[in-house]
Amino acid sequence: MSASSYTYLGPEGTFTEAALRTLPEAATRELIPMLSVPAALDAVRNGEAAGALVPIENSVEGGVTATLDELATGAPLMIYREVLLPIAFALLVRPGTTLGDVKTVTGHPVAQPQVRNWLAAHLPDAVWESAASNADGARLVREGRYDAAFAGEFAAATYELEPLVTDIHDAQNAQTRFVLAGRPARPAARTGFDRTSVVVWLRDDHPGALMELLQEFAVRGVNLMRIESRPTGEGMGRYCFSVDCEGHISDRRVGEALMGLKRICPKVRFLGSYPRAGAAPGDTPEPRYGTSDGDFVAAAEWLARSQDGRA
Amino acid sequence: MSASSYTYLGPEGTFTEAALRTLPEAATRELIPMLSVPAALDAVRNGEAAGALVPIENSVEGGVTATLDELATGAPLMIYREVLLPIAFALLVRPGTTLGDVKTVTGHPVAQPQVRNWLAAHLPDAVWESAASNADGARLVREGRYDAAFAGEFAAATYELEPLVTDIHDAQNAQTRFVLAGRPARPAARTGFDRTSVVVWLRDDHPGALMELLQEFAVRGVNLMRIESRPTGEGMGRYCFSVDCEGHISDRRVGEALMGLKRICPKVRFLGSYPRAGAAPGDTPEPRYGTSDGDFVAAAEWLARSQDGRA
Amino acid sequence: MSASSYTYLGPEGTFTEAALRTLPEAATRELIPMLSVPAALDAVRNGEAAGALVPIENSVEGGVTATLDELATGAPLMIYREVLLPIAFALLVRPGTTLGDVKTVTGHPVAQPQVRNWLAAHLPDAVWESAASNADGARLVREGRYDAAFAGEFAAATYELEPLVTDIHDAQNAQTRFVLAGRPARPAARTGFDRTSVVVWLRDDHPGALMELLQEFAVRGVNLMRIESRPTGEGMGRYCFSVDCEGHISDRRVGEALMGLKRICPKVRFLGSYPRAGAAPGDTPEPRYGTSDGDFVAAAEWLARSQDGRA
Amino acid sequence: MSASSYTYLGPEGTFTEAALRTLPEAATRELIPMLSVPAALDAVRNGEAAGALVPIENSVEGGVTATLDELATGAPLMIYREVLLPIAFALLVRPGTTLGDVKTVTGHPVAQPQVRNWLAAHLPDAVWESAASNADGARLVREGRYDAAFAGEFAAATYELEPLVTDIHDAQNAQTRFVLAGRPARPAARTGFDRTSVVVWLRDDHPGALMELLQEFAVRGVNLMRIESRPTGEGMGRYCFSVDCEGHISDRRVGEALMGLKRICPKVRFLGSYPRAGAAPGDTPEPRYGTSDGDFVAAAEWLARSQDGRA
Repeated sequence: MSASSYTYLGPEGTFTEAALRTLPEAATRELIPMLSVPAALDAVRNGEAAGALVPIENSVEGGVTATLDELATGAPLMIYREVLLPIAFALLVRPGTTLGDVKTVTGHPVAQPQVRNWLAAHLPDAVWESAASNADGARLVREGRYDAAFAGEFAAATYELEPLVTDIHDAQNAQTRFVLAGRPARPAARTGFDRTSVVVWLRDDHPGALMELLQEFAVRGVNLMRIESRPTGEGMGRYCFSVDCEGHISDRRVGEALMGLKRICPKVRFLGSYPRAGAAPGDTPEPRYGTSDGDFVAAAEWLARSQDGRA
Repeated sequence: MSASSYTYLGPEGTFTEAALRTLPEAATRELIPMLSVPAALDAVRNGEAAGALVPIENSVEGGVTATLDELATGAPLMIYREVLLPIAFALLVRPGTTLGDVKTVTGHPVAQPQVRNWLAAHLPDAVWESAASNADGARLVREGRYDAAFAGEFAAATYELEPLVTDIHDAQNAQTRFVLAGRPARPAARTGFDRTSVVVWLRDDHPGALMELLQEFAVRGVNLMRIESRPTGEGMGRYCFSVDCEGHISDRRVGEALMGLKRICPKVRFLGSYPRAGAAPGDTPEPRYGTSDGDFVAAAEWLARSQDGRA
Repeated sequence: MSASSYTYLGPEGTFTEAALRTLPEAATRELIPMLSVPAALDAVRNGEAAGALVPIENSVEGGVTATLDELATGAPLMIYREVLLPIAFALLVRPGTTLGDVKTVTGHPVAQPQVRNWLAAHLPDAVWESAASNADGARLVREGRYDAAFAGEFAAATYELEPLVTDIHDAQNAQTRFVLAGRPARPAARTGFDRTSVVVWLRDDHPGALMELLQEFAVRGVNLMRIESRPTGEGMGRYCFSVDCEGHISDRRVGEALMGLKRICPKVRFLGSYPRAGAAPGDTPEPRYGTSDGDFVAAAEWLARSQDGRA
Repeated sequence: MSASSYTYLGPEGTFTEAALRTLPEAATRELIPMLSVPAALDAVRNGEAAGALVPIENSVEGGVTATLDELATGAPLMIYREVLLPIAFALLVRPGTTLGDVKTVTGHPVAQPQVRNWLAAHLPDAVWESAASNADGARLVREGRYDAAFAGEFAAATYELEPLVTDIHDAQNAQTRFVLAGRPARPAARTGFDRTSVVVWLRDDHPGALMELLQEFAVRGVNLMRIESRPTGEGMGRYCFSVDCEGHISDRRVGEALMGLKRICPKVRFLGSYPRAGAAPGDTPEPRYGTSDGDFVAAAEWLARSQDGRA
C-alpha cells in the first residue's frame, strides 16, 4: 500500500469497487480492498492511503452505521467526493448452469431483502444462505459451495462466473451513496451544486434543541437533505445527528448556519463540502429570497455603514 | 437658535422640557421649545439644532405616532439617548384658589384619561375642556379662563401658579419615554445595557413575514422589547414595524440579527443603539447560551479553520 | 335614544356617519351621534343602543387607540360588521367663495396631514387651525369663523356649504375602517371570507412570548391581517396585542389557534368574527395544505380510531 | 405455537428472551423463539401469536432497522410495552477452561464493538469470528468450535457452559430497548409517564417539512424522545421518520399534536402509547405552561362559550 493509494470496502468485485472506479482520480492510483469500513478509514488516518471509498447510505437499507459512526468519532476525516451507484444484482453461476439447476443461492445479508421478491417469483424453492460479502458469495459459487450468487454483474469475470440473469432489484431506483474520505484539508471547490455534511451533538436535557438546530438552517434559507440520529454511546436517549444540507461551506448562508450550530451545540464536526453526485450545474435552484452571497455581502456592508452612522 | 442647541416638544413647562433637563448634556445648551414633533425634528434635519427631545411612548397611552412616523420617514435621524420620566400631575391653580373653588379644569387631551378617576373622586362636578398642551392649560389658568390645570408640578413657577394637589395619576407607574434624536453619526457607545431601534418593512403578500422577522431576533437570542405596527400609507393592511430589541448594534448577536432583517426585508431603517434609561450596569442579564460576543468570535474562527481544513 | 338605535362617533356629517349609512341595517334605525368613542360604546354597554359604529383604523394614521383600548377593557363588546370607507376630503366653503378668497382653513387634526401636500400646492398661504371634528370645522365656516373647511363632501348640505374642490387626499387609497360593536352574542355568520379579532395579553418576562403567539396561528395555517401592540397600563414595557386574523371562529383552524392562545396566555378577549369588508365571496383563498375544515375533521376521526386501535 | 403465545427474536438464551422474561404477562405464556424480527412479527400478524418481543434500539448501536422498517410497513402492528435491558456480556466457556486457554472467541457481530476494548486489554491475541447470534455462539462453544463466546450470563445454563468473566461492556450504561408488538387494539392505559410512537411520511419536495413536523409537537409542549430517519425505498433522499414523544395519545396535547401531523403529512402510522420503562410515577415532569389536560379542557370550553357569545 502506498501513501497515494485509495482503500475501499472490499473484497474485490463489490459495488464499492465499482463505485470507486467511476472516479477519474482513481484511474491512476493503487486501489486496495479492506475487510471493513474502519480498516479502510484507519489506513487513511494512519497515512497509509490518501483516501478511502466507503458506502454511507443505501436508498433501501438506509444509513451505513459503521461509516456514520467512524466519521463522527476518532481522528477527524473529511469527505471530498460522493458517488451514487444504481444497485442492480446479477445472478452469477458457473458456466453451463441453468435456472432450473439452482437449488442454493448466496449473497451479502444486505442483498437479500433487495432480491427477495425476485427470488420468490423465479426461484421459490431455492435455499438462501448469507455470505460475508457479495464478492465472497461469488467466490463460494466458483468453489462449488452454492449454485448461484447475487452480486454486481462486474464481479462475474473476477470469479470466472457467468451472469445468468441481470438487472435484478426489487425496489425501483435502488441506489447506494459512497463517499471518498481523506485527512482534513481544504474542502473541495464550490461548484454551485454542493452538499455539506456535519455531525452535531445537542445539549442534554434541552427540549427543543433539535428544533433549534433546524432553525439555524431554516432562518438562513439552507435546505436539509438528510438527517440521521445516532446514539452517542453515553446511554439510552442520547443522540447526535448526522446532517447533510444543500450548499458549500463557502456559501455565506451555509457558513452562517454552521456558525450558528457551533454556538448552540457543545460539539460540531464539519465533515466536508463536496459536489453533489448526479447534479448538473444547470440544476442549481435559485436561493431563497435574501440568502444569496450578494444579499449577505450587501447586508454586511449596510451593517458596517450603520455602525458608522452612514447607512 | 444655534446649531448646538436642542429643540424639544414645547411649550415651556411641559414634561418634555422636564425630561430634557435631566440630561447632563442639556445643561450647557440652548433649549428651544417647538410647536410640534415634526418641527422639533426638522430643526435637527436642517442643521439648526444638534438634537431634539421628543416623546416616543407613554405607558398608558402607547406610542406617540407623530414621533414614530417622523423617525420612520423623511431624512434619516438617529436616537442617541432615552429618558424615562414618571408622569404625575399637579393641579395648578391661581394662588388662593381652594378645591371647592374649582368649577372648570383643563389640560392636554392625553392628560385627561390619566386623571379621570381622580377627577371623578375629588372634583365630580368640574367641567373639563382640553388645551393644546398642559403648559398651555396652565397659561389659560393664569389668564383666568379656567380655574385649574393639570400639568407637571415644575410648570407652576413658569406660570405663576400654585400646585394645589400633587402626584395625581390614575395608573400606577405611569411613565413617558423620550428620545434624543440627532443627525446620523456613530451610535452611542455600548454600555452593556442598551436598546437598539429599527423600523422594518415586510414584503407584501408574504404570509408569515412577521414571524420570520421575529425569528431573525430569536435565533440569535436577542430579546424584543417593543414592537409596534404603523401603516405605511400605501393602503389598508400595509404596515411597517417599529421594533426595539435588547443590546447594541456592536453586539455580535444584534448585528447578525440586523443583517438578517436587512436581507429578508425590502427596507430596514436603523434608528440607533443607546443606553437603556433606568438600567444599572449590574442589571445586565447573561446572554442566552451561545450568543455572547465570545461565542460569535469562537464560531467565526472555527468556520475559518474548517474552510481551511484545520478545524 | 331607543334600545334599537345605533350610536356613532359624531357629530353629524362626519365620515363615521357616512360609513354607518352604508350599512343596510342602519336604514331603519335611529342613528345617534355621540361626542366620543367611549360615549358611543358605553351607550351600547348600558343597553341604551343596540350597536355603535366607531373608527378603528386609518390607512394613513394607524389604529384608533381610543377604540382599541375601549374594546380591550371594560364590559365586553363584540364586533359584528366592518365598513371600509375611502377617505377623500372636500374643501367646503360658503356659497360664492373662490379659491383666491380662502385665507383660513380648518378641519380635524387628523385631516391635516392627509391634505398637507394639497394645501402646499394650492393654498400655500392659507392658515390652518384645528377644529374638534371635520363637521365642527364645517359649522365654523358656516358661522364665518374660517373661510374653508376640509370635510366629507356629504357634509356640505348639512352645513349649507358648497364643495369648492372634491376628492382631495395626499395618500393614494386612504381608507378608514369602522367597526359595528354590540353586546356579546353569537358571532356573525361565517361567509368564507371573514376576519376574527382578539386581544391577547402575554405572560410577563417570558422572552419569545410574542413569537409563541404567532406560532399558534402559523402552525394552523391562519394568516395574520393586523397586529398592534397597546400598553396594558401596568408600566413601561408591558403590552397587550390587538390581533386580526383571516377566517371565522367556526373555522376549525381558527378555533384551534384561538384555543392555543387561550392556553398560553393569561388573558384573551374574543372580539368577534365578521365578514371582511370589500371582499367578494369568490376571492376566498385556498386554505394552506392540511388546514381546511375537512382536514381537521378527518384528523379528529383518525385520532378517535387510533385511540380505539382501529386506525 | 398457540394464539396466546409470545414470539421473540431467538434463539433461546438471547438478550431478547431475557427481556421478555422480565414481563409479568410472559410468565404464563408459551414463549417461542423465531429466526428473525420479520418472522417474530409475522406470527403476530397471522394470528399465530398474541405478541412479539423484538429489539428496537441499542444505546451503542442505534436503531434496529429491521424492527423499525417492519413496524412502518406491512399489516399494522402496535406497541403495548417496552423493556429496557442493561447489556453486559459474560465470557462463556466450557467448564475448566481458563482465560489463558482462550484462543478463539465468537458472538453476534453486534456484540463485537461492545467488547472490543475488553478483548484488546484481556485477550489481545484471541481471534474473533462472528456467529449468527450470541446464543448460537454459545452453542458453537459447547460443540468445541470456539473456546469462548460472548453472550448473556443467563445463557450459560442453557448451553452447559460457565461464565468465566461477567459484566463485560465497553460502553457505560449500554442498554437495549425492546418492544412488545401486537395487533392493533386500544392502546395501553395511560400511566402519566408514557411514550408515544409514530411513523411519519413528509410531503415530497417541501423544504422545511421536517421543521413543520417538529413544530406540531413543540407548539403543544410535547417533548421529542427519539427521531430516526429511514428510507422509504422510493429513491435516494426520500425518508420517513420514526418518532417517539413523551406522553400518551389520550393526553390532549399529544392527541392534538398527532392530529396536526395527520393533517400536514400524507401518511402517519400510529404505533402506540405505552408506559415508559424505567420510569417511576413520581418522575412525571410538570407539563409546560398551558399544556395540561385541564388547560385544554378550559380552552375548549372557552371556545364554545365564545362561539355562543358567552365568553
